[in-house]
Amino acid sequence: MATIVFCSVNKMAQTAARRCLFSHLKGLASSGESRLPLSCTHSPSVTFLAGIRCFSRGYSVRFMSHGTAGRAATGRTRRGALALIGAAAVTASAAVAGFLANANHFQRAEMATKVSKAAEENEQEGDILERCRGFMSPPVTDIGVLQERKGEMRTRMEMLIMETQAAFCNALEEVDGGKFKVDRWQRNEGGGGISCVMQDGKVFEKAGVNVSVVFGNLTEEAARQMRSRGKVLKGKDGKLPFCAMGVSSVIHPKNPHIPTVHFNYRYFEIEEEDGTKQWWFGGGTDLTPVYINKEDAFHFHNTLKEACDKHHLQYYPDFKKWCDRYFYIRHRGETRGIGGIFFDDLDSPSQKEAFNFVQSCARTVVPCYLPIVYKHLNDSFTDENKGWQQVRRGRYVEFNLVYDRGVKFGLATPGSRIESILMSLPLTARWEYMHEPAKGTMEAEMLEVLRNPKEWV
Amino acid sequence: MATIVFCSVNKMAQTAARRCLFSHLKGLASSGESRLPLSCTHSPSVTFLAGIRCFSRGYSVRFMSHGTAGRAATGRTRRGALALIGAAAVTASAAVAGFLANANHFQRAEMATKVSKAAEENEQEGDILERCRGFMSPPVTDIGVLQERKGEMRTRMEMLIMETQAAFCNALEEVDGGKFKVDRWQRNEGGGGISCVMQDGKVFEKAGVNVSVVFGNLTEEAARQMRSRGKVLKGKDGKLPFCAMGVSSVIHPKNPHIPTVHFNYRYFEIEEEDGTKQWWFGGGTDLTPVYINKEDAFHFHNTLKEACDKHHLQYYPDFKKWCDRYFYIRHRGETRGIGGIFFDDLDSPSQKEAFNFVQSCARTVVPCYLPIVYKHLNDSFTDENKGWQQVRRGRYVEFNLVYDRGVKFGLATPGSRIESILMSLPLTARWEYMHEPAKGTMEAEMLEVLRNPKEWV
Repeated sequence: MATIVFCSVNKMAQTAARRCLFSHLKGLASSGESRLPLSCTHSPSVTFLAGIRCFSRGYSVRFMSHGTAGRAATGRTRRGALALIGAAAVTASAAVAGFLANANHFQRAEMATKVSKAAEENEQEGDILERCRGFMSPPVTDIGVLQERKGEMRTRMEMLIMETQAAFCNALEEVDGGKFKVDRWQRNEGGGGISCVMQDGKVFEKAGVNVSVVFGNLTEEAARQMRSRGKVLKGKDGKLPFCAMGVSSVIHPKNPHIPTVHFNYRYFEIEEEDGTKQWWFGGGTDLTPVYINKEDAFHFHNTLKEACDKHHLQYYPDFKKWCDRYFYIRHRGETRGIGGIFFDDLDSPSQKEAFNFVQSCARTVVPCYLPIVYKHLNDSFTDENKGWQQVRRGRYVEFNLVYDRGVKFGLATPGSRIESILMSLPLTARWEYMHEPAKGTMEAEMLEVLRNPKEWV
Repeated sequence: MATIVFCSVNKMAQTAARRCLFSHLKGLASSGESRLPLSCTHSPSVTFLAGIRCFSRGYSVRFMSHGTAGRAATGRTRRGALALIGAAAVTASAAVAGFLANANHFQRAEMATKVSKAAEENEQEGDILERCRGFMSPPVTDIGVLQERKGEMRTRMEMLIMETQAAFCNALEEVDGGKFKVDRWQRNEGGGGISCVMQDGKVFEKAGVNVSVVFGNLTEEAARQMRSRGKVLKGKDGKLPFCAMGVSSVIHPKNPHIPTVHFNYRYFEIEEEDGTKQWWFGGGTDLTPVYINKEDAFHFHNTLKEACDKHHLQYYPDFKKWCDRYFYIRHRGETRGIGGIFFDDLDSPSQKEAFNFVQSCARTVVPCYLPIVYKHLNDSFTDENKGWQQVRRGRYVEFNLVYDRGVKFGLATPGSRIESILMSLPLTARWEYMHEPAKGTMEAEMLEVLRNPKEWV
């Protein structure tokens, strides 16, 4: 474990973020949508806090100060445990892109793309240690090891998921004013994770952003089960060395007009008897609004579509359908939300190109979601709106506990870190007997979409 | 379907219940525990309402007035659908026993037993039509058919589950002041059910008492899966006529000092190729408190033990262990509550004796639970108590959605009545990240018991 103390803050990134937030707010104001409290726009306490936060959170302090620090996850690894982990990265620049994007809510995709390209170049060239400074915690793998294996895919992916976590957490802290609780945990058999959770914040009821990097040996059976397209893999004495990593997140806001978002990007590597490496990526981002807002839905899907289209024109339509199929609450005959993209077993056209695609997706997380959060930050709502949100939260729980493959296998895996698996559950939920919205209401409109998924782009 | 209008009310039962409630309250008062609002003890509006209720709820009105009346459940029947149904009965007299029981909270078992014996005799002799008058709705099976098949086990069980539903609902309405919503539903392939739900009452956050009676044909595979001890059954052309019925209930009170209770009593019959009838009973009652109260735990378990001991001295110890094993949230390493009894596949020593045992269990539902409700009716509580209750509610949801066999199979069965399956979920629940009560608190004491189940009797 790295013991260096990350006391210095990436001043440039801070300044850039501040500048971008300011232009975002100016943009909002000029489009007549400024509903943010003024104090957010120029209060020195906000920017000062952002700087302070990094100091007070020198990593050696940050993850030693929690009661759960170093808590061991002793589980055997199977698909479930692995489904909790993922792969995707957003650099500080991408976070900036997110803020830039807000300058005009739904004409920001182009800007985001430009910044992402620059970030991509940085990712290739940047110094590992330098890039680690912005993380929520030192990476799971020792920084020295990452530097040695700089060119390997597992290093590139670990950097990507750490960066995604940091960028998303920073963006959420910025809008909420609260701070993430950072828990580092280790897995006895190899690897560990970093769970960031913010609970009962000003904007977010519960926000969780989780990174895991695990490795060890799999049985042939477990290896076969890990892929949704089961494939026979031959191990040495029946054992297959593997490495799996990912970032996953679920954000439940308080205001019923701000949707819940979920994303997960992951990477797997398995070594066969003859030394051949099997690898694949999986992931996706999807939105679960409480009320339909067509503009939000278009923005969210279009941002994903643009990220997909850069890599293959078939990705968005295919992965959009896969998402609607996957996030389906069968016993209700409803999708969980309005979807997004979902894919698994991606092992083509090449490792580099697949990674580039996953990287593009991971970098859309902030620009997909944050503009929607800012837009509805101060939307007023009634008790009825809140009640409907709670009913929808109940459906979210139903999906996650009954159908979600990651959760199911995670819970079935002895020793897996339950709190990281179940951090996806909302802080509060509600089940009303025979709840059916009256015809013509906004609630009925939402339900209609969940029962008949739409094309948004 | 019976079309008779049940306009007359069983005056004797009403009067008896009123008298018993009064003596209960006198008993409470004399033991210095009277915390009920005085208006409950002699307000004519309460007793008048009780009478009125039956009039305004003439059955032809009662189940036609709901939007969901006659809603068809079109599912194929498998274990899951069957797990929703059960078998047990409590006559009006048993409800009375429950109230009598309250005269002195925890010395009522003897009285309950006496009344139960009288009720048992009534059950043998009573007129079907007369007994049906007290039900929440006409039985699922046509009353004429029940009268014709009076001596058959399926008739005796259907009467038992209907009576259990009525007695429990009446007792809950009496303490809450609210009314159950009664939904009758039909199953296309044969049979149907009656769901009674009271939501957001004065005392109960959500109370559901469900009856189902279903029949038709099973495949040999489905028949095998229905029993926890799988058994090969031979059908005519692979088909096995079956009949399954049961009563199940989950009650979530508002006050965190009143525990949640659950019970389920069920009966199955399958006819083999050669006309042999396979039959078995299953069921149980278990308590889920938010805080440990040893007196309540003793009362609850002792009442069950006494009911068991009348039939076999091994029943209570065996079924108590089975209950602790079954209601276990594996991923948390906790039981759902403090248990009770649970059994399945009961097909000995004879059908009559097994039924008598199930009947005794079903008749303990009111005396097990109602005294605890009355005792804590006006206990004061803090926001912290309420918060802990909500966290425990979250665990309840986890058990029901992840492990409960009935729920799992019910959700997996196309066309099953989801609202009846999920009425067991609380109105509200909460998931806090890394929630762990501080040492020495009442919350920690509760958790300790859930992690290490105790003997209470």
